[in-house]
Amino acid sequence: MASCVFCDIVEGTATSRTIYRDDDVIGFLDIRPVTRGHTLLVPRRHSSGLADLQPEIGGRLFAAGQRLAAAMKVSALSADGVNLVVNDGRAAFQTVFHTHLHVVPRHDGDKLSFAKGLVVRRDPDPDETARILRAALEPDHR
Amino acid sequence: MASCVFCDIVEGTATSRTIYRDDDVIGFLDIRPVTRGHTLLVPRRHSSGLADLQPEIGGRLFAAGQRLAAAMKVSALSADGVNLVVNDGRAAFQTVFHTHLHVVPRHDGDKLSFAKGLVVRRDPDPDETARILRAALEPDHR
Ligand SMILES: [Zn+2]
Ligand SMILES: [Zn+2]
Repeated sequence: MASCVFCDIVEGTATSRTIYRDDDVIGFLDIRPVTRGHTLLVPRRHSSGLADLQPEIGGRLFAAGQRLAAAMKVSALSADGVNLVVNDGRAAFQTVFHTHLHVVPRHDGDKLSFAKGLVVRRDPDPDETARILRAALEPDHR
Repeated sequence: MASCVFCDIVEGTATSRTIYRDDDVIGFLDIRPVTRGHTLLVPRRHSSGLADLQPEIGGRLFAAGQRLAAAMKVSALSADGVNLVVNDGRAAFQTVFHTHLHVVPRHDGDKLSFAKGLVVRRDPDPDETARILRAALEPDHR
């Protein structure tokens, strides 16, 4: 198989700011976030897209998305809303061909920021962002 | 509970072009499609968003999305790719507060259409679109 950067992250041979792990799914910060906290959830086992993703694993990916969405709202990021997005195929803007679910925290007023072109896709302190999300995913939200 | 247009569709008291049904989820054409075939998958049981959606039902919603994505590709719509999107909360562009998964077929070149402002969000023949998707969801794709 050709090399896959997300498999490398799963295996620990590429670095990432990992914020979520379960038996089937890991989550790490997108290096080019649409908003602060933008996370990618990926199945540990490689699939290129929806067609070769086992439905049970798809369900666990979505469940992890629900859990992370809740965490983003209670976290210090104080998300007002969340987008869950799968881009399946190049025509749908997929760029890494290891299935992934984008989890994008939103705030009231984001729409205006987009309209004004203020979206820079760069987090000035991603380590702090990762710390905030890891903390919010713990049961007691400490 | 306040009235909910998606509950009305589930109960059959509001009309829709339904293209998918299973025990937990139904799917119908978006009346204001981003692309032809744009479908909304909704849990039969009301939830307003990700926070009050049972994770098992979330998993079935996602599985239905995978199934529909595959159907869109083999159908006469010949999708090259598909976006699965949940907008959770007003800040994330949710407008109907009954949880739903957008399933949006994409074609090579869509990006250009968007850039040129050619997206009209109106399907000239939605009945034909619904027929195509229903047919593709049948096991033999007839
Ligand atoms: Zn991979
Ligand atoms: Zn409802």
